[in-house]
Amino acid sequence: MVEKKKFSIIGGDLRNVKLAEFIAAEGNSVNIYGFDKAGFDVKIKQSSTLEEAINGSDVIIGPIPCSNDNEFINAPFHSEKILIHDVFKLMTKNQLFIAGRISEKIVHLAQVCNVYNVDMLEREEMAVLNAIPTAEGAIQIAMEEMPITLHNSNTLVLGYGRIGKTLAKMLHGIGANVFVEARKYADIAWIKSFGYKTVSLSELTQTIKDMNVIFNTIPSVVLNNDILKTLNPDCLIIDLASKPGGVDFDKAKDLGLRAIWALSLPGKVAPVTAAEFIKDTVFNIIEELGV
Amino acid sequence: MVEKKKFSIIGGDLRNVKLAEFIAAEGNSVNIYGFDKAGFDVKIKQSSTLEEAINGSDVIIGPIPCSNDNEFINAPFHSEKILIHDVFKLMTKNQLFIAGRISEKIVHLAQVCNVYNVDMLEREEMAVLNAIPTAEGAIQIAMEEMPITLHNSNTLVLGYGRIGKTLAKMLHGIGANVFVEARKYADIAWIKSFGYKTVSLSELTQTIKDMNVIFNTIPSVVLNNDILKTLNPDCLIIDLASKPGGVDFDKAKDLGLRAIWALSLPGKVAPVTAAEFIKDTVFNIIEELGV
Amino acid sequence: MVEKKKFSIIGGDLRNVKLAEFIAAEGNSVNIYGFDKAGFDVKIKQSSTLEEAINGSDVIIGPIPCSNDNEFINAPFHSEKILIHDVFKLMTKNQLFIAGRISEKIVHLAQVCNVYNVDMLEREEMAVLNAIPTAEGAIQIAMEEMPITLHNSNTLVLGYGRIGKTLAKMLHGIGANVFVEARKYADIAWIKSFGYKTVSLSELTQTIKDMNVIFNTIPSVVLNNDILKTLNPDCLIIDLASKPGGVDFDKAKDLGLRAIWALSLPGKVAPVTAAEFIKDTVFNIIEELGV
Amino acid sequence: MVEKKKFSIIGGDLRNVKLAEFIAAEGNSVNIYGFDKAGFDVKIKQSSTLEEAINGSDVIIGPIPCSNDNEFINAPFHSEKILIHDVFKLMTKNQLFIAGRISEKIVHLAQVCNVYNVDMLEREEMAVLNAIPTAEGAIQIAMEEMPITLHNSNTLVLGYGRIGKTLAKMLHGIGANVFVEARKYADIAWIKSFGYKTVSLSELTQTIKDMNVIFNTIPSVVLNNDILKTLNPDCLIIDLASKPGGVDFDKAKDLGLRAIWALSLPGKVAPVTAAEFIKDTVFNIIEELGV
Repeated sequence: MVEKKKFSIIGGDLRNVKLAEFIAAEGNSVNIYGFDKAGFDVKIKQSSTLEEAINGSDVIIGPIPCSNDNEFINAPFHSEKILIHDVFKLMTKNQLFIAGRISEKIVHLAQVCNVYNVDMLEREEMAVLNAIPTAEGAIQIAMEEMPITLHNSNTLVLGYGRIGKTLAKMLHGIGANVFVEARKYADIAWIKSFGYKTVSLSELTQTIKDMNVIFNTIPSVVLNNDILKTLNPDCLIIDLASKPGGVDFDKAKDLGLRAIWALSLPGKVAPVTAAEFIKDTVFNIIEELGV
Repeated sequence: MVEKKKFSIIGGDLRNVKLAEFIAAEGNSVNIYGFDKAGFDVKIKQSSTLEEAINGSDVIIGPIPCSNDNEFINAPFHSEKILIHDVFKLMTKNQLFIAGRISEKIVHLAQVCNVYNVDMLEREEMAVLNAIPTAEGAIQIAMEEMPITLHNSNTLVLGYGRIGKTLAKMLHGIGANVFVEARKYADIAWIKSFGYKTVSLSELTQTIKDMNVIFNTIPSVVLNNDILKTLNPDCLIIDLASKPGGVDFDKAKDLGLRAIWALSLPGKVAPVTAAEFIKDTVFNIIEELGV
Repeated sequence: MVEKKKFSIIGGDLRNVKLAEFIAAEGNSVNIYGFDKAGFDVKIKQSSTLEEAINGSDVIIGPIPCSNDNEFINAPFHSEKILIHDVFKLMTKNQLFIAGRISEKIVHLAQVCNVYNVDMLEREEMAVLNAIPTAEGAIQIAMEEMPITLHNSNTLVLGYGRIGKTLAKMLHGIGANVFVEARKYADIAWIKSFGYKTVSLSELTQTIKDMNVIFNTIPSVVLNNDILKTLNPDCLIIDLASKPGGVDFDKAKDLGLRAIWALSLPGKVAPVTAAEFIKDTVFNIIEELGV
Repeated sequence: MVEKKKFSIIGGDLRNVKLAEFIAAEGNSVNIYGFDKAGFDVKIKQSSTLEEAINGSDVIIGPIPCSNDNEFINAPFHSEKILIHDVFKLMTKNQLFIAGRISEKIVHLAQVCNVYNVDMLEREEMAVLNAIPTAEGAIQIAMEEMPITLHNSNTLVLGYGRIGKTLAKMLHGIGANVFVEARKYADIAWIKSFGYKTVSLSELTQTIKDMNVIFNTIPSVVLNNDILKTLNPDCLIIDLASKPGGVDFDKAKDLGLRAIWALSLPGKVAPVTAAEFIKDTVFNIIEELGV
């Protein structure tokens, strides 16, 4: 059991508000700053200054992503801009800074300011847990967009990493016919073990014709013109891969195919669950570092 | 194998259009009538008169529901009104009329006109199959409305009939914690067998506090004021029961609870799948009657 | 909650010994009689006479099956024979007699003696629960007898009653390819809903060739000579149907096919679980009767 | 598609006999040697000499394990001993030698003889596939040994590697309550994602008391005296870990606990499936090496 600590939550979206509530609910002290124009009810009293928020805390938690411009904390619910440099200047060397997607530039700034920092998005367990709301979000989109049930439909998952594994399992649980494209022999063995149908890259053009929906998780353009042309015109494409994505969207449009690029689903479809996973990860980091 | 027949599809929504396509795709002859202002592409040539449509057919298929006023065929995609009486007058005694929810009044009219008719919604297999899109639709709504994932959330299904069984299975497949309220000892045994948690009516007020979402399938007001008051304010209620429904919606509103009455989901969330199930049921009826 | 009562357990096998322990563990008073030569440890003090065992009890529980000859209680662990008539003569009209498979003859005797009796095997919930150890026992036999894994093997379940449903679900859970033969349209709809492959009787000879194991649950000779001849010689047959069974065992032997008639599995493969299900059923009977 | 090749199968058990049949069934030429006293029917003509068997082949496949003494091929079905050195001397440098558990000593001998060799047990996909019959074998043993059903029983899997993952999934599929002990945060996240209950090492003594069966997959003595003492006396232990195993078997015996060390299950419980997985792996090796 991690002993009680003092936390500061600086900026971020609904996830960070919920995170503050969850951490407080476990008996920890929590300061929050950067939510003065949040439209919803915030149960924790907001600190009036950045200094008041940071002072005396053990752990300072920033947003996901940490910043959109490498200069200001990403704080969509705040009326004023919060300089990352100001946060770091107020921190002492015994305080820990945790946020998501801390760019090289920000890491450099942290070093200059002598601030110990951890990027929670680089934690394996966070990526595994985030695959859950990502997969559910993808399923929600498929249900909304398709005039058929996922049950008994032909679904293809491209890639068998964390999202691929989680998504395949949920699709199977709903009753879809699950096909998974993977290359490594070991992945193919796992796919067989879980009872999905494996599709090798060479069989792809053959199999893909009968698919009702394709979920891509590979961050490289797998669904190029040649493959898109073979698709059933009713086939829905949901791309879950980060930039550059896995679909030639222009060609898809030309061919009249519906292709949706769905990014950052956890914060969008299940912010409260996402906040819980952030909490788990933050506590793991603290336990590991012995803060 | 059912041998090739002649079908007429008269009125209805997208489901009946798809039904016509599916029946034609299996090599049968299909006339359609009642879709002259359908906004979408109809692949089958429409008959120019009701008489042309009905004449020479083996089976005449009407909409679900058959009529909204017991007088006219329910034909939302048609510019003119189609009298049920006109349909029946044009039919001979060797032709079979199939539609959904054929009211007593329409049955009476059919008898007067010597028209043999079958209500497809009274077919057990149709009800079982329709539970699939109903359950998926309910899950879609839950995903859209909840800020948490269904995975690992506490879900309660009230009633263990066709929809309850199908929904419990899918929720379990996505990774939700599934509680089912049922009364009959045999149902409780089945719930245990499937690995869900059983909740008896006497335990309901205790268990219900921890639920994140409740799906009602019982057509009687189970979620009355006393029970609604015990709910967590964030708990979502999705009522799938036909009239009178299972929720005191006024009280729910007073208590600030979100309660959604979701009816006729198959035609809304998965019209193409629903059409396929209609087709299966129509063919079963034909096979059974030896038409 | 059922209030505490006095029980007598008379005869039976390990299940009744465990049943006595379970009932006692819930705070009830329990007399047992008919286990004087049980080789294993019996935790409850045995009554020295039948009269002592029965006197003052609310409920007298006999074995499953109640008797093998309609005269004596089925008591394989007892050194002396216990006349059913003696049990009934000692009972008063306020006492309830519960056992399994109470024959017409025994029912008649009970009426003559003014003994109120309930056959627990006629309880729907008992049959549903017993399907669980039956299905597991069938799977165990298949695993022992087959040189291949059930995972990814072709398994056919004949019949979709309580055992068929439970068995199909477990086979699917292990990763087998599950085919189910059923006739009713509604059953076929359920099989589709659960994601198994349906096989109609007319397709049976075609499909059955590729099966690795067949589980029969239909109490009528489905696997007759004509069908047995089409089987793969390595195919294993496990018959779970009560008399007359579903397999022409002589023909199977002639054809060199392995066919196993596996009856009364719950008491054999999982007596402790079976005892728990008996306890649940006994308590349901008591609650229903308001004893 | 791998093009047709010439194979030699030298020694081994039933798996290698089936392997030969499977490879031949796909249109390849297969010589076999080392089965002259096999009690069962061998469908492929046996070569009369080792030289005849090896000469002209592309791939020579030995047994699993390759040898028990580093000198002779493991050939339980052969009347004479086959020297590994003789095999290697007969091979040319264009021929490939594949077997399981090729010891350092044998690797050295191969190098001396200029024989290219691959240990199939070091292939990741083989280990993943072999986890399937291992998990089924473990379940079979549990079913045979326990007087309760796996359904609804408390099962603990120690370790979440390939066997742990596969076993947890199957136990869950049968309806057991699945607890998994793992240490890495990412593994714990996966366990949560799959819906099992996680047990950390610190919680182990608390949780373990309620278990009905424990499956160990960790090759280090986790179940030591201190932990064994906390177990329910009826708890069954099945150890699947290779030497030194994970159980203090002497202490378990002293405490009256049933502990079974179940090794090499694939070849024992499902030799035909195991042969199929060997075939898949052999073809992967060939494809990868471009033989």
